[in-house]
Amino acid sequence: MDSQLKAIIEQIVGVEHVSDSEAMRELHGHGESYHKGIPPELVVFAGSTEEVSAVVKVCSERNTPIIPYGTGTSLEDHVSAYRGGVSIDVSRMDKVIKVNTEDLDVVVQPGVTRKQLDSYLRDTGLFFPVDPGADASLGGMAATRASGTNAVRYGTMRENVISMTVVLADGTVIKTASRSRKSAAGYDLTRLMVGSEGTLGVITELTLRLYGVPEAISAAVCPFDTIEGAVDTVISTIQCGIPVARIELLDAATIDAVNKYSKLDNKVTPTLFFEFHGSENGVEEQTQLVKELATDNGAGEFQWATLQEDRDKLWHARHNAYYASMAMKPGTKGITGDTCVPISRLAEAIDEANKILATSDLLTFIVGHVGDGNFHTVILVDPDNEAEIEEAKILNNKIVERALELEGTCTGEHGVGRGKMDFLIQEHGAGVEVMKAIKKALDPNDIMNPGKIVTV
Amino acid sequence: MDSQLKAIIEQIVGVEHVSDSEAMRELHGHGESYHKGIPPELVVFAGSTEEVSAVVKVCSERNTPIIPYGTGTSLEDHVSAYRGGVSIDVSRMDKVIKVNTEDLDVVVQPGVTRKQLDSYLRDTGLFFPVDPGADASLGGMAATRASGTNAVRYGTMRENVISMTVVLADGTVIKTASRSRKSAAGYDLTRLMVGSEGTLGVITELTLRLYGVPEAISAAVCPFDTIEGAVDTVISTIQCGIPVARIELLDAATIDAVNKYSKLDNKVTPTLFFEFHGSENGVEEQTQLVKELATDNGAGEFQWATLQEDRDKLWHARHNAYYASMAMKPGTKGITGDTCVPISRLAEAIDEANKILATSDLLTFIVGHVGDGNFHTVILVDPDNEAEIEEAKILNNKIVERALELEGTCTGEHGVGRGKMDFLIQEHGAGVEVMKAIKKALDPNDIMNPGKIVTV
Repeated sequence: MDSQLKAIIEQIVGVEHVSDSEAMRELHGHGESYHKGIPPELVVFAGSTEEVSAVVKVCSERNTPIIPYGTGTSLEDHVSAYRGGVSIDVSRMDKVIKVNTEDLDVVVQPGVTRKQLDSYLRDTGLFFPVDPGADASLGGMAATRASGTNAVRYGTMRENVISMTVVLADGTVIKTASRSRKSAAGYDLTRLMVGSEGTLGVITELTLRLYGVPEAISAAVCPFDTIEGAVDTVISTIQCGIPVARIELLDAATIDAVNKYSKLDNKVTPTLFFEFHGSENGVEEQTQLVKELATDNGAGEFQWATLQEDRDKLWHARHNAYYASMAMKPGTKGITGDTCVPISRLAEAIDEANKILATSDLLTFIVGHVGDGNFHTVILVDPDNEAEIEEAKILNNKIVERALELEGTCTGEHGVGRGKMDFLIQEHGAGVEVMKAIKKALDPNDIMNPGKIVTV
Repeated sequence: MDSQLKAIIEQIVGVEHVSDSEAMRELHGHGESYHKGIPPELVVFAGSTEEVSAVVKVCSERNTPIIPYGTGTSLEDHVSAYRGGVSIDVSRMDKVIKVNTEDLDVVVQPGVTRKQLDSYLRDTGLFFPVDPGADASLGGMAATRASGTNAVRYGTMRENVISMTVVLADGTVIKTASRSRKSAAGYDLTRLMVGSEGTLGVITELTLRLYGVPEAISAAVCPFDTIEGAVDTVISTIQCGIPVARIELLDAATIDAVNKYSKLDNKVTPTLFFEFHGSENGVEEQTQLVKELATDNGAGEFQWATLQEDRDKLWHARHNAYYASMAMKPGTKGITGDTCVPISRLAEAIDEANKILATSDLLTFIVGHVGDGNFHTVILVDPDNEAEIEEAKILNNKIVERALELEGTCTGEHGVGRGKMDFLIQEHGAGVEVMKAIKKALDPNDIMNPGKIVTV
């Protein structure tokens, strides 16, 4: 790192907000998966859009890469500094700027995490539905087009970001859209930036949709003898148009891990976690319909959680499933599949994934947002054992190939990063050339999170 | 038009599918508003993606512009051939390719119109919600990011296009996404193409979301003494999170026009049209809540339409509101505002629009998808009277300027075309430069519907 550049950046953000210590650089070089990552040369804790813009501008003038950093919970090596450069950490930009109660939206800085926003909204009667497992930053969630357990009813970051402020590769600041609910005013810059993983710009402010907390909420845990019974229940629920808020599958191995990690005593068998939102009557109606469908597919007894405290415990356990699985074999990391298929192909996709995983002795788990057709396969590997990593990758490749044959996608919500670039080419073909053309147009010197999504 | 190019195109699509007759060219040069338009040099009725690709390729080699054409119902001069060239009419590509009942989606060719799809789906128990006033083609609706009366509940084309096949400026064919419900696989090419108005490519196939026809549907007409009462009812309804399917405002002038055009006898006063979707109980609950809110805001008697036939009549009248307004002064055309603001600013935006319109003697109407914060001002002008056009534009400019000040957008659903390019710059500022960069990257010779959205 050019010491002159460091000095200029220190002037912009304050010397106390810049670090090139080995520990800080190491922390900012990797996410939470098996990818080892590569540390940046410098970590900058920016405090405002103006500071981000100024830092990007001076980096741009020196052709120095920029890697935006939220909470470092990525699973696909999004923050590795492949060409060195500066990590822009937005954790200081953690203010909820304004809740527009009447418009059901909120303006936040990118470092606000989803749990922080949850707490902030507690007394407003409103909530933000997108909830990946990790307590990710909202900027990072927008950057990777994250979703979570509520997406089946409320959509993903794609549907729930109204507008963003973004610093482009030359330091220019744009607002992607107005605060209105819909617009036909030109190319959809909001959706272009959602999912761009820091390769087109740094997100420095977001306007997000909120929803009224439903009058009634009820959650349930429902065990099945077979994974097929669980999956068929999901498919029927979606095809009947029942507006479930959450419908999550955990296979027996995941239930075992979750029980141990979160001190629960669920029956160790394939299980669906449900949540219903609506009026008292509406929730009752949904519940009855789903119970009938589940019973037809061999469900065991539903266990209900209507108290907020019990529901929180349930979903907390679900959100920690990835950490719970890793805890089954300390020292391991997960290689995580994230395929998503049309709902009619879900039973086939999960069945085949199961068969593929069964050929290996590695510890594996299946868990997912099955209402969207999205499921995760987690394969535990020793991150220092190349043979295990290689084996897991071969299994993962087979699962992805099958999902693509079933008209699915290689990633429902984790993003491409460095980890899924080959899959992206398999999935999109000539579309990847369009992505490259956009990348070159908006970042001609390839300084924005280089080497992610596409190489140019 | 170079006669060699015409001969090559005739070879590609068949001589019977190519026309340069004056009448055919004239028809393809304009939409349905006051814009007079400019005819293309040649009209080509393409029959397949392959034919579109081949035509675009030969045009690209000769630097000849391409203007995609659906049904010609645009309001913002989207089909004018400003630099001459070839109109690619997709009306022959009118097949519904496949209804995937289990996945709640449908694959269609771009020339299928919304009413045609409605009829096709009649016996499936499914429906497609996006319904602009005109019987537009689905390709055109995607190209302009259209919405309509159901958007408040079901979203616009932005939310309801799953994937598209698009022919790019060099003839390359891409598929923008898989058929899965969500994906984090790279830049969102689907959302980039939705709303790109033919300036980045020609849409030749679409996969669209469908919804189950609700168990119960009920529609109502509710008169108010004042437009404020009607708008306040809308705002309260949205803020209470009541999941109305449709909530439409028609001012007294529009009701008068609609009554005359569709032979109805609604009281000539500001009026809301509602529709409720859900279970029997759900619809009953929503209805009661909305009635209370409406009564609090001075509503008159609700008139109910629960029979499909009566509902169809009601919405048919609403969809024809633009044609009805023009019929109030034969020979005129509309200059249509399409502003959309956050719902909390809607009362202010409509009140100010009303005051601005009241300063003019031109015939004016206000009608809109108020649940989204979107409303149309229609100003009737003699398309040959420059003074009237100038006056209407000044009124329109004031309305848009105010909407932008209220954190709104210049267009909720009609798109930019040629007509709103200045407003786009006012609204997006530096964002327009990003749009230009994308346009240049994907269409370096500016042959795809040139002169629309941005000039490069």
